[in-house]
Amino acid sequence: MSQSFVETKYFTFAESPNELVLKSGVKFGPITLAYETYGQLNADKSNAILIFHALTGDAHAAGWHKDAKAPGWWDPMIGPGRAFDTDKYFVICANCIGGCKGSTGPSSINPASAKPYGMSFPVITIEDMVVSQKYLIDHLGIKKLLCASGGSMGGLMALEWSVRFPDTLESAILIATNYKHTAQQIALHEVARQAIMSDPHWNKGDYYGKELPAQGMAVSRMIGHITYMSERSMEEKFGRKLQDKEKLGYDFSQDFEVESYLRYRGASFVQRFDANSYLYLSKALDYFDLSEDGDLLKVFKGAKSKFLVVTFTSDWLYPSYQSKDLVRAMKANDLDVSFIDISTNYGHDSFLVEIEGQSKLVKYFLENVRAR
Amino acid sequence: MSQSFVETKYFTFAESPNELVLKSGVKFGPITLAYETYGQLNADKSNAILIFHALTGDAHAAGWHKDAKAPGWWDPMIGPGRAFDTDKYFVICANCIGGCKGSTGPSSINPASAKPYGMSFPVITIEDMVVSQKYLIDHLGIKKLLCASGGSMGGLMALEWSVRFPDTLESAILIATNYKHTAQQIALHEVARQAIMSDPHWNKGDYYGKELPAQGMAVSRMIGHITYMSERSMEEKFGRKLQDKEKLGYDFSQDFEVESYLRYRGASFVQRFDANSYLYLSKALDYFDLSEDGDLLKVFKGAKSKFLVVTFTSDWLYPSYQSKDLVRAMKANDLDVSFIDISTNYGHDSFLVEIEGQSKLVKYFLENVRAR
Repeated sequence: MSQSFVETKYFTFAESPNELVLKSGVKFGPITLAYETYGQLNADKSNAILIFHALTGDAHAAGWHKDAKAPGWWDPMIGPGRAFDTDKYFVICANCIGGCKGSTGPSSINPASAKPYGMSFPVITIEDMVVSQKYLIDHLGIKKLLCASGGSMGGLMALEWSVRFPDTLESAILIATNYKHTAQQIALHEVARQAIMSDPHWNKGDYYGKELPAQGMAVSRMIGHITYMSERSMEEKFGRKLQDKEKLGYDFSQDFEVESYLRYRGASFVQRFDANSYLYLSKALDYFDLSEDGDLLKVFKGAKSKFLVVTFTSDWLYPSYQSKDLVRAMKANDLDVSFIDISTNYGHDSFLVEIEGQSKLVKYFLENVRAR
Repeated sequence: MSQSFVETKYFTFAESPNELVLKSGVKFGPITLAYETYGQLNADKSNAILIFHALTGDAHAAGWHKDAKAPGWWDPMIGPGRAFDTDKYFVICANCIGGCKGSTGPSSINPASAKPYGMSFPVITIEDMVVSQKYLIDHLGIKKLLCASGGSMGGLMALEWSVRFPDTLESAILIATNYKHTAQQIALHEVARQAIMSDPHWNKGDYYGKELPAQGMAVSRMIGHITYMSERSMEEKFGRKLQDKEKLGYDFSQDFEVESYLRYRGASFVQRFDANSYLYLSKALDYFDLSEDGDLLKVFKGAKSKFLVVTFTSDWLYPSYQSKDLVRAMKANDLDVSFIDISTNYGHDSFLVEIEGQSKLVKYFLENVRAR
């Protein structure tokens, strides 16, 4: 059963003179986080689960907004009786800083100038996103999270939390993620950024209230969609099926279904996501390296939580071997870690669509965390 | 030893009223092919090998042009004592139609208008490229090729020749190729095309003598380079190495070596290749499907040549499984086919860089073809 109607809430902190010191050294504030909660926080505040979203996600993880056509982005995983069971757990999800879905980001109004930040927004990191959400958890009066979880970028945030705030976390569920962005992952983001920044309408990030960099966003989104699917799932879904045509057109309009699918996804992206946020969040991902000093083993010396690490066999954007390296480093530190490589054709998108397998794993894992 | 100095030659055919009928049904001509030859054609004209180039290749496969800084694109494979041994064989390579390196393509002058064709150039196919090169082979007085060979797009052309002109071919060497473009391959090309066509300087293909669509070409080339390398080879070559920096810059200039590598490759591409040719040739690739009626087995019923099929384990753009399907269909037709999946990290680029392994295979294969 899905959550019923939910509303987004807002929490503001880091107001002058107490700005947040970002990893770059820049002082920044005020910061507003948009967040949602599902279920009830219990009396001893021991049933809270923090969900982190992926690059283009938001705080609306589950349930329905009034008049919405679709529920939250991880609705099949969060609700009464579901994997993150809202009859048992108090589930929180916040839009990350740098985003464009209610939390402070490049499209937010800079109170100092009364204009959108645009590219004057400071470069933020995964670490900054995690630190800012710690303020939210403190604000909610939660001393220790039962679990922090997320897929893709969300997994990096849960991982960062586990080593940065080890005493505040019982467990972490890391799905389709990594511990540092590799050359190929950086390369794919860099192409997407160049596509956006080379669109004349991007205008050095100053396009708010003007024509949007639609073409650049479309190209960046098309690249994204190719990387989120697997070669096999694209073949199964589209193959060489023609779009609205009896035969090849011998022109440069769209011939194949896969072309029109990508064009449609690309064209609609600029309406639902801010181009500058895409630049900032992709940069935050590329900057992330938990093994900054080169030694992944050391990083987990202070970690205390129990871990569930999930990968998908056909995910070529965040391949399983990267999580295996992570799991080896955890095990070498005698951490309690379970690792599952789910066999599926859905590629990186699996964390959003392979609900049945993930649900069983998450349910069982959470019941065991509670039983300790 | 490399070939010594070589010069490009030109052959023109399909002049009015004998235009070539393209696969689309359009009649087109005149057609000029730029081509080079290496070695000597023997008395009975039985030692000719036709090499087909890949998407952005050209007729200059081997040897040195006067004052050039680098030899031809497959020079380590072609020359005295090399895999395609010019002491034994007469090697021919022609720029395909639709290209921009001397053969008739979108940047050529349309004799009817005295202006470049631009997007008035007809959509061409792999089949059209092959048919046009058959005119060249006839012109050279060669009745039967000892071998047709190529990597990537060049492999498709060699494959097409083997079923279209079976009586004119002793053998074919198909490297890092496929028999039909899959959804992912089409998708990657479509993103590259959209990147070019959304550059305002592309100007519906009418940019000759004006500002070039440099940004769109750069983005399309960056995507290309990611697909030509493997995830592992990118990691080995670049990892997270920083470019000209002691530490992360916390800005949107280039931080990582992989970013500056891609930017450099992207920026230089527009100088060496025509944007419209990239559109036409990528479209020709996407259109190719040897199993057009759905039955790959039937296609080889008339084929007669001996085949060597080579793939590379880390090539994710043209994965080995696609060639394995091809080999199965050949074997089911009792064709003489050898298949090798070379273990390497270099990805699709392997056909250009894994010289030692390929040389041994090609040499041995060609000696056996001759011995029959």
